[in-house]
Amino acid sequence: MKTALSIVKIGGELLDDPQSFDKHLEAFANLPGKKILIHGGGKAANELSEKLGIPVQQVQGRRITCSESLKVVSMLYAGWINKSVVAKLQALQCNALGLSGADGNSIYAKKRGQQNIDFGFVGDVVQVNTVLINRLLGLGISPVFCALSHDANGQLLNVNADTVATELAKALSEIFEVRLSFCFAHKGVLKSLNVANDLYPQLQQEHFEELKREKVISGGMLPKLENAFDAKLAGVAKVKLGDISLLEHANSGTEILC
Amino acid sequence: MKTALSIVKIGGELLDDPQSFDKHLEAFANLPGKKILIHGGGKAANELSEKLGIPVQQVQGRRITCSESLKVVSMLYAGWINKSVVAKLQALQCNALGLSGADGNSIYAKKRGQQNIDFGFVGDVVQVNTVLINRLLGLGISPVFCALSHDANGQLLNVNADTVATELAKALSEIFEVRLSFCFAHKGVLKSLNVANDLYPQLQQEHFEELKREKVISGGMLPKLENAFDAKLAGVAKVKLGDISLLEHANSGTEILC
Repeated sequence: MKTALSIVKIGGELLDDPQSFDKHLEAFANLPGKKILIHGGGKAANELSEKLGIPVQQVQGRRITCSESLKVVSMLYAGWINKSVVAKLQALQCNALGLSGADGNSIYAKKRGQQNIDFGFVGDVVQVNTVLINRLLGLGISPVFCALSHDANGQLLNVNADTVATELAKALSEIFEVRLSFCFAHKGVLKSLNVANDLYPQLQQEHFEELKREKVISGGMLPKLENAFDAKLAGVAKVKLGDISLLEHANSGTEILC
Repeated sequence: MKTALSIVKIGGELLDDPQSFDKHLEAFANLPGKKILIHGGGKAANELSEKLGIPVQQVQGRRITCSESLKVVSMLYAGWINKSVVAKLQALQCNALGLSGADGNSIYAKKRGQQNIDFGFVGDVVQVNTVLINRLLGLGISPVFCALSHDANGQLLNVNADTVATELAKALSEIFEVRLSFCFAHKGVLKSLNVANDLYPQLQQEHFEELKREKVISGGMLPKLENAFDAKLAGVAKVKLGDISLLEHANSGTEILC
């Protein structure tokens, strides 16, 4: 039987508030066994861009990463947020080590090609260095990934944190029994955004397609669920979405089934 | 006989200019065998502080690190500079992995006590995690350290990059035959700042004390040389100061003897 591995994505918005930041890191530190954290960036990138007079460009709700924005993202995600998370986890007796995809070539990405929109320095994950990550886990280390990678030609690239979590979970499922948790502000996939506690305890792909067609699920939840189903279909043992209770109780959140 | 290990400190001012940045990283990537890079921060921290309206406070020529300055330093040193260095080295086939002292608890520091001056979030290195660093080197990884550490209680601390290099070299000399190189803008310790090529090929401690008394050596060169002698006295096999040629020719720079 494969060893268990928890892969936890914590949305950047959960780290914006110091109390929430601490609470989520404590819950992660308390998880038993081997574990990996992926964190998003939250509002900080927009705030810093504004202060520096760098225009935040979005097309169809998606961020365009110019060279100045890439610097902001690198400073915040790989610098301030990643190192703050690592230092906090170390204080909680969790032997965290922060990584971008460039570090140890842990995640290699490719600049997204220009089709209709040029997204700038945005990358899509191509390959995960499972050998390195497995060795770090073997040393008792908990890798902490930010959403930054490289193209192996010296160029840093902004990547999507949900996709990083998904690709790590898919690749590491060859070695481990992976439990992938997407933590965000809701208790799970809600039946209606107006009722905070009424969630789907399980979601099957057919049902998800139906909810998409009926526009019950839309917006930012769509790509998140698409990542979740991608992971499940690729053989990740358990995929769940929900709030911090995902890290505390087995029966919380929405489980993805296919 | 112990295995050789090159520990190279590259001054931040050498990374400010893109051409110089590339040249130094190429020279580091070309070094044979196991190696560790420590990089400084350069002018970027002052520039970013100014843009963000954060006052750069110095007392007796030494920087005071308030909480806002710590954020700037973390963003630049651990984020933008460290990840740019790592991505460049990866492109040069050097398997670099960026670290702050918090990562894997690789370097543990202590906040500098208030005597006459409160330096803020500035730390002094207490302990180097030689077990982790040795294992990373064993995986074919070249660690790339920025000048940021932690107090193991969740607090990041700004540390001096020359001291990080010195403490790494001292601690790792238990396992390796360490060659420590301090790379800066001069060819070595100059007999006079007016003659760029007239350097001391070797410098002994007695001679150094004499040059200090006579004020031939002063300013920023003093703490750098004190670090260098500290390393040599603690048993580091070879300690040199000089420009990029330190990484290219055996007979360049100033060698520290005791």
